[in-house]
Amino acid sequence: MTQLKAAVDGRVTTEMKRAAAAENVPAETVRAGIAEGVTVLPFNEKLDERVRAVAVGKGLRTKVNANIGSSRDHADVRLELCKARVAEEAGADALMDLSTGGDLHAIRRAILRETSLPVGTVPVYEVAARAEDEGREFEDASVDEMFDVVEEHARDGVSFMTLHAGVTRYAVERLKSQGRELDIVSRGGALMAGWMARREAENPFYEFFDRLVELALEYDFTFSLGDGLRPGCLADANDRAQITELLALAELAKRARERGAQVMLEGPGHVPLNAVAEHVRLQKAVGGGAPFYTLGPLVTDVAPGYDHITAAIGGAVAAAAGVDFLCYVTPAEHLSLPGPEDVRLGVIASRIAAHAGDVAKGVVGAADWDLEMSRARRSLDWKRQAELAVDPAEAARRRSENAPKVEAETCTMCSNMCAIKLSEKALAE
Amino acid sequence: MTQLKAAVDGRVTTEMKRAAAAENVPAETVRAGIAEGVTVLPFNEKLDERVRAVAVGKGLRTKVNANIGSSRDHADVRLELCKARVAEEAGADALMDLSTGGDLHAIRRAILRETSLPVGTVPVYEVAARAEDEGREFEDASVDEMFDVVEEHARDGVSFMTLHAGVTRYAVERLKSQGRELDIVSRGGALMAGWMARREAENPFYEFFDRLVELALEYDFTFSLGDGLRPGCLADANDRAQITELLALAELAKRARERGAQVMLEGPGHVPLNAVAEHVRLQKAVGGGAPFYTLGPLVTDVAPGYDHITAAIGGAVAAAAGVDFLCYVTPAEHLSLPGPEDVRLGVIASRIAAHAGDVAKGVVGAADWDLEMSRARRSLDWKRQAELAVDPAEAARRRSENAPKVEAETCTMCSNMCAIKLSEKALAE
Repeated sequence: MTQLKAAVDGRVTTEMKRAAAAENVPAETVRAGIAEGVTVLPFNEKLDERVRAVAVGKGLRTKVNANIGSSRDHADVRLELCKARVAEEAGADALMDLSTGGDLHAIRRAILRETSLPVGTVPVYEVAARAEDEGREFEDASVDEMFDVVEEHARDGVSFMTLHAGVTRYAVERLKSQGRELDIVSRGGALMAGWMARREAENPFYEFFDRLVELALEYDFTFSLGDGLRPGCLADANDRAQITELLALAELAKRARERGAQVMLEGPGHVPLNAVAEHVRLQKAVGGGAPFYTLGPLVTDVAPGYDHITAAIGGAVAAAAGVDFLCYVTPAEHLSLPGPEDVRLGVIASRIAAHAGDVAKGVVGAADWDLEMSRARRSLDWKRQAELAVDPAEAARRRSENAPKVEAETCTMCSNMCAIKLSEKALAE
Repeated sequence: MTQLKAAVDGRVTTEMKRAAAAENVPAETVRAGIAEGVTVLPFNEKLDERVRAVAVGKGLRTKVNANIGSSRDHADVRLELCKARVAEEAGADALMDLSTGGDLHAIRRAILRETSLPVGTVPVYEVAARAEDEGREFEDASVDEMFDVVEEHARDGVSFMTLHAGVTRYAVERLKSQGRELDIVSRGGALMAGWMARREAENPFYEFFDRLVELALEYDFTFSLGDGLRPGCLADANDRAQITELLALAELAKRARERGAQVMLEGPGHVPLNAVAEHVRLQKAVGGGAPFYTLGPLVTDVAPGYDHITAAIGGAVAAAAGVDFLCYVTPAEHLSLPGPEDVRLGVIASRIAAHAGDVAKGVVGAADWDLEMSRARRSLDWKRQAELAVDPAEAARRRSENAPKVEAETCTMCSNMCAIKLSEKALAE
């Protein structure tokens, strides 16, 4: 019995109740959304109450995911556990362990033990890393190896998995025939395309999608159908390959849902600002309203070192247009593996984007937070302003390191020319 | 002879040529835009070629202004000169000296000597600071004192001035009758409202607007008609007071333009993301297409310490919808006077927003920058990527501090699982 089957049967599960309580909505809202396929509750039947139940979807707060994970250059389980803690403390709603270096199994289990957030993975990274450890190529990996790794992740308690099932032979042909500036920038997408090309075979996650569905039903993990052909630069956005893959994913999503497995769809990537909202509407329309999980989108390619900001711009607009789940981007994007401070800044920037989107799309209660802050500003209550801030410690630090001397209740920006005080005086005249 | 009069007469001035050359557009584009009132070229007849000619308006690159200036808590001319240098190095197109503490005249002249950027000011701050230095209240300042300070700024070489001429008695009544969470959050707006209330008089910049126009014609500075009643929180956005003021400013803009003085209109402030583009279109429509200069807009109130990010979200959407000039917001906003590193981060965040907007609104050549970066990424040319970055030093620093050991041409994110390389291999199979 999966969350989706229960929802369709009209039953409210413990996890639905917990997820609803966490954001102060009726449990029935969560159940109805899951039943309709417009909400997912990434969980795993191996998990207990220690792990937060987080619902992602229509009418709910936009959630934020933080990608952590090792690489061959930095394969240190302690560093990844530190990043997991930092992400959770900064307010992330979920983690993805994208490790590609070191003992992937050990890192994944350590993260699952450490965090109370639902954890997602990209199993194909482990298939590739194992092949390399054994001196083989990824192209040598068998279909069974791929499914075995998916099942292993499910058994470990992974709540959602990115599976690049839409990188079909047909879609890759579309990419080649159109041509691109940056071809395939998804590691999973590029791995699958290479495997398919070498073997002259179809993508096994597409060809044997029902095997994936069986696993999803057994462990009740959620599909995050990955956009392996997402654009890697503005110039490639919204091309035929991207949309071809989206249409394939939308079909698979329907098949999975009909059998009782939860699905969200992943999205780009790099998209010009004027095309973000349109793309969200297209993805929602063809995906039957499936929860939409975006990476970025980054609205310019020229800001390495500041891609948390370019992603916040795109993410806010995307969330306002209906995106349900934002994958953060850190300042290290395009440059290096993120460290703990990058993780923190990435989560905060994404949370700002998510909240700006929530106010814009009218999530119930979202604007109350802004109103409370405004009232703390009006009363020059600096302690309360810091408490209400998206990052209370940073707001408090800045205030304490810049305490005003001229007039204690104002700040060093205006000193005795404080607009709040001038305004009160003017309107009282 | 002002820039506007010359433009209307069909004459292309030296400054128009310089401004056009700086962004690789025909000088005729700049001239025609100025003549039509949809472009301004903030300059001052006291200035020479040492100061950059910067055109702001339709079809041109969205420009970025950095606010610097002292307060009574931090009145140090060296700090302000440092901030002026940092802003220029980070790529600001203009500076505003908003000093309110120390010897304002000396600070302004020092900044004007130091920078090659056009400088804007808010003269009424100096009127208030002088009154206080002399133990008087701002309400004691005479109308002549106000105009004298405006002329002094013009004589010093200020290129654009914020004048809160739309804070009329009628508009303040609208604010009072509707009620607000945060009343007047503009210092200039609150000062004018206080002066008017005490004296039971009309706003002198409104009542005697023609005197301002005379000064603008004599020195050829540009009006930046200030929104003294801008909303200070999301809850106050787009209320009747704000729109009443906008309509008054639009009328004044037309009067100034008809006499040959250049005008831009200022805008909010704090605006929910879903209302940003609508507001830009309203302001452009009622303002007869006057260049629109926005502060932010900030799309949430809850992120003190990160308001450069909330402003980048709002600014990008505003620029995409037609805003011509973004006033940066720094991470210190709502907390303290910004320091040099805040200034740098504010300029970079605003430049990202401006560029994302330029790509979206189709400014000629804007997307070429992104394309060049994409090609440097494809060829794994890390040196070129840093050169092309919005902040080359930061991109280069991150790369050099995170050099990969596993595979020199990749980065530590992917090590030997680089999507660019995997994709090349896959598509070559």
